[in-house]
Order: sequence, then structure tokens, then C-alpha cells
Amino acid sequence: MIEERLLELGIELPPAAAPVASYVPVRIAGGLAFVAGQVPLEDGKVLLSGAVDSDVTVEQAQEAARRCALQALAALSEALDGLDRVIGIAQLAVYVASAPGFTDQPTVANGASDVLVEIFGEEGRHARAAVGVAELPLGASVEVAVTALIAPGPQTS
Amino acid sequence: MIEERLLELGIELPPAAAPVASYVPVRIAGGLAFVAGQVPLEDGKVLLSGAVDSDVTVEQAQEAARRCALQALAALSEALDGLDRVIGIAQLAVYVASAPGFTDQPTVANGASDVLVEIFGEEGRHARAAVGVAELPLGASVEVAVTALIAPGPQTS
Amino acid sequence: MIEERLLELGIELPPAAAPVASYVPVRIAGGLAFVAGQVPLEDGKVLLSGAVDSDVTVEQAQEAARRCALQALAALSEALDGLDRVIGIAQLAVYVASAPGFTDQPTVANGASDVLVEIFGEEGRHARAAVGVAELPLGASVEVAVTALIAPGPQTS
Repeated sequence: MIEERLLELGIELPPAAAPVASYVPVRIAGGLAFVAGQVPLEDGKVLLSGAVDSDVTVEQAQEAARRCALQALAALSEALDGLDRVIGIAQLAVYVASAPGFTDQPTVANGASDVLVEIFGEEGRHARAAVGVAELPLGASVEVAVTALIAPGPQTS
Repeated sequence: MIEERLLELGIELPPAAAPVASYVPVRIAGGLAFVAGQVPLEDGKVLLSGAVDSDVTVEQAQEAARRCALQALAALSEALDGLDRVIGIAQLAVYVASAPGFTDQPTVANGASDVLVEIFGEEGRHARAAVGVAELPLGASVEVAVTALIAPGPQTS
Repeated sequence: MIEERLLELGIELPPAAAPVASYVPVRIAGGLAFVAGQVPLEDGKVLLSGAVDSDVTVEQAQEAARRCALQALAALSEALDGLDRVIGIAQLAVYVASAPGFTDQPTVANGASDVLVEIFGEEGRHARAAVGVAELPLGASVEVAVTALIAPGPQTS
């Protein structure tokens, strides 16, 4: 069903990032799925780097935040063999690499929030914290950590 | 009961911040309520902005953190039609806009922690992470994200 | 069992940090245990302070992150009267005090992630967000917040 909605919206999920090191892309606990923080990637390279408002624009960072949210869905889809068990989104933490004096982290974060609501409707609405940080992995301009709501299933752990 | 406790303490909750964009003030998942990150607001304007230890004092930021915690309760009260279903507080993330060299984020965060324990007693005690960040939405000096414990009810989703 | 595994690995848990102020080292909610953010401590003093890549090296910070993870286990052990009820690790937030231009927070965070997988095996694998921040409590170089998976028990609250 969510896959159909993605088709309707013309949204194609990016490839899920390969699991690295000792952490995993998705960890399920009870009715929640914790998704690892996503930086915007393409072919293993960061898509947008630098501080928002000096090195990159708010619009570019917003688009990158949208990409991060889609990568999180790709990770969920890979972990759960599709998105049917993803009921909705509980929470986002959005970290924005911010130039001194840049305080519009919410607009950047909307890139992630809006696409999740487009896809999941009301159940995509979530609590959110957006903060400006000094530096992000790979120099990325934005990082998004998603907590999703999951229906019970055979392989929950 | 919690409302009575607020009366006893002479604490009046501030108005809940209006939901903006695609995120919501509170999202309930199982026994947890995720509350959106709160910056200190009054009449839609940020109450305290600037870096702690240069632009504002620790005491001012502590008071602002207290306000953020109360706003989170106001959001819970609005979402749950009162605070009767709020059993306690699980976790706080406290982000403090910090001048270079300022490392007393815990004292700022106590403004939020202490008022929650005043109100909820033992059940208000929570795990906490306090960090210093570069910039916060609207230039706020502090942002507090609350995760609360919720009793089962009719409108959980 | 986890205690035996610690013995096998020759890992001795550090003392749990004393509870301070209104927050607690561990808060249990349903099947999750939220552990307060840990900075690397010894005898109440911070073990490693300053920004990574200028004041301290990545290797030092990685070792400190490992220490933070062990302190989190010590806190869980104290709260739950041993580690038998700790099933696995759900999520880590790793905050790294970062010099300008330092973007290898994941390598620092691996210090925490790797030791948890060493101890818990597959069930130690977790979702993770690593970010670079301006300042941390006590000037610490790294702070780690752990969310663990907990088996039902008598004293859950």
C-alpha cells in the first residue's frame, strides 16, 4: 500500500545505504523501528556538504533532508521486506550543519517532514526536534534520524 | 491529579505552541509520547535567544529550559485532553546554544528536569542527555525534547 | 550470562556515575531502558576533554566513546541488579566535540558501537546517529546516550 502511494507520487526510493561497522540501518524494538541517522548519499558519496547559509542554500539543504527521509524509508523497506509493516512515523531528529547566525533549521527539516506526510498521510505526522550543529559525518549539510511505528510481525526482535 | 499538583505548585502552563508544517506537537506510540522539541516562546516570539555565557546567563537559560518543559506539558495536555494519562517522564534531550568554552549545559538542563520532578515526583525522574550546539531554531538559547510515559487510553494511535 | 561474557572479554565495568540532580541514570519504559548521556569519567573527573582533531586525537576519542558505552552498561547493571535483563541495544546517540572541519564522527562512535557488539553479539547491533557538536558537559570530547532493550521484570515502572 505504501509502495503504491510511492508510485502514485512518482517517488522512487534511493538505494539503502550498506550497513557499516557495528551499527545497523534499522533496529526494531516492540512497536518502534529506530533508523540510523542518514546523511544524503549517492553512490556512497555525500550529496550535499558544507554549512547551510554559507556553503549551501536553505533550499538545497531542504532537498537533501528530503533525500535523507527517503533513504530512511529505503532502509526500513530493506529491513522489513517492504513497507507494509510501517504504520507511521513517530519522531524525527534533524541535525543541520549551520553557519554562524543561521537559525532556520525548521525550514530545512520540513524537507524531511513534508515528504513523510505526503507518503503516509496523517500517520506520517511526527514529533520533531531540529537543531543546528557544528559538523556532521562526511561533512554533510544535514542528517536525519527517523523513529517509525511498526506493526507486529514475524521477525521482530 | 497532575492538574491539582500544578495548582498546588502555583504553576500555570503556558499556551501550547500551534502545530506548524508537517510535524505535530505530540506523537503517541504504545506507551510513549514523543513531544516535539520546544524552544521558549511567548506570543509566538522566542523568549530568550543567543549563546549561553556570552549573550545570556546560565540563570536565564535555566529559566528558559523550565519554560520549555512546561510548554511540553501544555502540548501533552492539549493532545491528551488533560494530563491524567501522563504517568511520568522517560527522557529529555536538552540542546543548549553554547558560547565557545561553555561546558555547564547540565545546570541549564536542570531548569527543565527540576520542574518535571516538582510536578510528577519520583515518576518525573528521567534519563537525560544535555549537549551544547551551535545554533537553534529562531536563535533560541535552549531547546528541550521530552519523551513521556503514557497510560493506555481510547485515542492512542 | 552477559556478566560471563564480560569476564571472557576481560572487560571490567567502570563504576556507575552517581545520580545527580533531578535526572536518573536509567529510566525504564515498557521494553526500553533509556540511559542518561554518558561523558567519560574517572573518579568524578572527565577523562578526555577538548575538541577532536585539534585538542585530542580520533583514537583517544574512540577510546573515550568505548568508556562511555561501558559506563552506560554499569548504569544499567546498577538499575537492574545485573545485566541479565538487558537483551540488546536499540539505539545510540553519539555527540562528538568537533574541531572545525572534523567530519569523522563515525570512527569515534565506533568505539562505543564495537564494544557493545563484542559484548552482546548480534543483539548488540543498534541504530546510531553520530553528530559533531560545539561543546559538551564538563568539556568532554564525547557523550554517548544508549537506549537498550529490556526483558520484562518485576521492578519495571
